[in-house]
Amino acid sequence: MDISELGEFGLIARLTSGLATRSPQDIGIGDDCAVLDLAADRLLLATCDSQVEHVHFTLQTSSPVAIGRKALAINLSDIAAMGGTPLYALISLVLPAHLPVATLDGIYAGLRELALRYDTALVGGNVSGTGQRGEQLIIDITVLGSVERGRALLRSGAHPGDLLCVTGTPGDSGAGFYSLQHPTLPVDTATLAYLHERHTSPTPRVFEGRVLSSFDPGWVTAALDISDGLSGDLSHLCESSGVGARLDLARLPRSSALRTLARVAEHDPYAWALHGGEDYELLFSVAPEHAEAVAQAVLAQTGTAVTIIGTVLPPAEGMQLVYPDGHAEQLTIQSWDHLKQ
Amino acid sequence: MDISELGEFGLIARLTSGLATRSPQDIGIGDDCAVLDLAADRLLLATCDSQVEHVHFTLQTSSPVAIGRKALAINLSDIAAMGGTPLYALISLVLPAHLPVATLDGIYAGLRELALRYDTALVGGNVSGTGQRGEQLIIDITVLGSVERGRALLRSGAHPGDLLCVTGTPGDSGAGFYSLQHPTLPVDTATLAYLHERHTSPTPRVFEGRVLSSFDPGWVTAALDISDGLSGDLSHLCESSGVGARLDLARLPRSSALRTLARVAEHDPYAWALHGGEDYELLFSVAPEHAEAVAQAVLAQTGTAVTIIGTVLPPAEGMQLVYPDGHAEQLTIQSWDHLKQ
Repeated sequence: MDISELGEFGLIARLTSGLATRSPQDIGIGDDCAVLDLAADRLLLATCDSQVEHVHFTLQTSSPVAIGRKALAINLSDIAAMGGTPLYALISLVLPAHLPVATLDGIYAGLRELALRYDTALVGGNVSGTGQRGEQLIIDITVLGSVERGRALLRSGAHPGDLLCVTGTPGDSGAGFYSLQHPTLPVDTATLAYLHERHTSPTPRVFEGRVLSSFDPGWVTAALDISDGLSGDLSHLCESSGVGARLDLARLPRSSALRTLARVAEHDPYAWALHGGEDYELLFSVAPEHAEAVAQAVLAQTGTAVTIIGTVLPPAEGMQLVYPDGHAEQLTIQSWDHLKQ
Repeated sequence: MDISELGEFGLIARLTSGLATRSPQDIGIGDDCAVLDLAADRLLLATCDSQVEHVHFTLQTSSPVAIGRKALAINLSDIAAMGGTPLYALISLVLPAHLPVATLDGIYAGLRELALRYDTALVGGNVSGTGQRGEQLIIDITVLGSVERGRALLRSGAHPGDLLCVTGTPGDSGAGFYSLQHPTLPVDTATLAYLHERHTSPTPRVFEGRVLSSFDPGWVTAALDISDGLSGDLSHLCESSGVGARLDLARLPRSSALRTLARVAEHDPYAWALHGGEDYELLFSVAPEHAEAVAQAVLAQTGTAVTIIGTVLPPAEGMQLVYPDGHAEQLTIQSWDHLKQ
C-alpha cells in the first residue's frame, strides 16, 4: 500500500493515533493549533530543521527508523545546545504519493522512539504531497522547549581565557559517512556498525546540555552544537562572542573506530573531526577554574565524556590550530553549505 | 544571481537582516534556538503548514510577494481560528539551487508585509537545498501565538441549537483558482483581479478571531478556518463536537465577483462556496441568543461581515443541505486531499 491509497485524512489518523498530551491543559491533535501550557518562570525555545531526501539522507543508506530518529534528533540537539528541556514537536511532512506506508510507519517509529526517550510530545503537524512534479521526501520539524530564565546557553558569552570543551568524539559522523561512500574498505563490522550508527542515528546531547545550564551563570559561558563541523561551529562561537580561539589538535578526542577507519582508508583522522559535520556533540566554553568540575559533573550525571580541546583567545589572535608537534597555523574553516552541493 | 552563488550563510544573513525582536528577553536570530518570553496567564498556540511549488502554487500564476504572503497567511489563519494572537514565526525553506535571489527576496517581502500587519516576529528558520534531484520550492512555516486561558476557540464545543456563522464570502478562492485555469473567459478585469487576489493573497481573519474569543465562554462555542472547503470543515466541526448540522444554501453569502464569474462560466456558484477550499474564512457556532450581537461586534470592530448560514443539529440528524427551494439533501463532503492529486 502506498500513501496515496491511504489519503490525507487516513494518513493523519494513522500518524496521530495514540499520541499523548503533556498537561491536562494541552490540546494536541485535531484542532487548528496545538494549545500548550507553559510554566511561567521559563523562557520558550523554538527551533526548526528539515531533512531532505537525497540531500540529508537516502532510503538506500538509512533505515526509515533511523531517518525518523535523526530528523527529530537534529532539532533536539538545538534545544540541548541552549541548555533547554525539549517539550513539544510539530512534524511537517512532504510526501511523494507512491511512498510505501511501511516506510512512513518506520519513520514515525523512529520519531516516537526519540520523542519518548527525551519526553517530547508530538503535538502538531502537517502533511503535503509532492504532487506529480516532485519525488523527494521531506521531514521538517519544529521543536519547542523551555529553559529557566537567565539560564539559556548562548553562543555569545565566551571570554578570553575560557577553556573550550567538547562532548563525545567528534568526527565519527564524518567517518561514518565516508565509510558508507566507500563500502569496500576492509574494516571490521563492529567498527563500521558503530560509525554508521553515529552518522545515521546521532544522539542529541539533551541531558548533557541540562547539566551545563544547571551551573551558576558565568561557569559555562557559551555553547552550541557542532552540526556544521567543529571548525565551522567554533567560528560561529568566536564571531558571536567577539573572540579568537586556539584548538589543540593533540587533545581532540578520537574514537577507536574513527582511528581504525582512518588507518585503513589512509585518511587524515583530524579532518573528519574538524570539518566532517553532523556530529551533534556540544562545543562550549567554561571559565578555566570550573572546567574540571563541569567535565566531571557531565560525566557523572550522563556518562558522556567531556574533553578540554582549546582556549578562548582575544579577538586579535584569530582562530589558531596547534598541531601535535607544537606548530600553530590559522584554522581553516570548512562549513557545510546546504545550498552548494 | 541565483541562490547557489549566495550560499547558505550569505542567504541567512540576507533573510535575517533587520528583523526585530518582540521583547528584550527575546533572542531571535543566530543562536541554536529562538529564546522567547511568553506571558504567564496565556496558553501557547502552535501550528505549522507548508506551501509546495506545483501543488499549492506556481511561480507562473502567483507573484513571489503573493506566495510569501499566503505561506504566512495560512498559518496565521490557524491562530485566528483558535481566537489567538500570533506572536512568532519560524520559516523553513527548501530551495532549488537555481532559484533567482530576486524571487526569494519577493517571497520575503510578502512574508514581512504580513508579519508586520499582524505583529508577528520572524524569530527563526532554516534553509536547505533541494540538491540536484529536486526542483520544488517549499515554504514550511510554524507560527506560535497565545490565547488567554479558557478562551481558546476549539472545534469541539458546538451544541444542537447553536447557529452556524461564517465570515466574508466563501467560494471566492475557488472561483479565483477556476479563473486562473480558464484565462480566456470574457470577464471584466476588476472581477478577475478581485478573485485572483482572494485566491493568491487570502486574508487571515486574525482580528475577527480575536473578537470571537473576547466574549464570555458559551457565546462562541466552536470555530475553525475553512481551508479545506466549507463542507469538509463543517464535517470536521460536527465530528469534533459530536453534532449534526443544517446548512441553508440560500443564506450563503456570495460576492458579486463570484456571481459574475459563475454566470459567465455557467458554473454552479454554490459548488465553489461549499467545496472550493482555501478561503481561510472562519466558520463558527454561536449560542442562538447571542448570534446577532456577535455578528454586529465583528462587523463593527473589523469591518468584516458575518452571516448566519445554518444550525447545529443533534448528531442523529447528520449533515443536511437545504436548497433555496426548501428541499433538503444530505450534504456531500468534498475535502481537498493533498496526497491525491
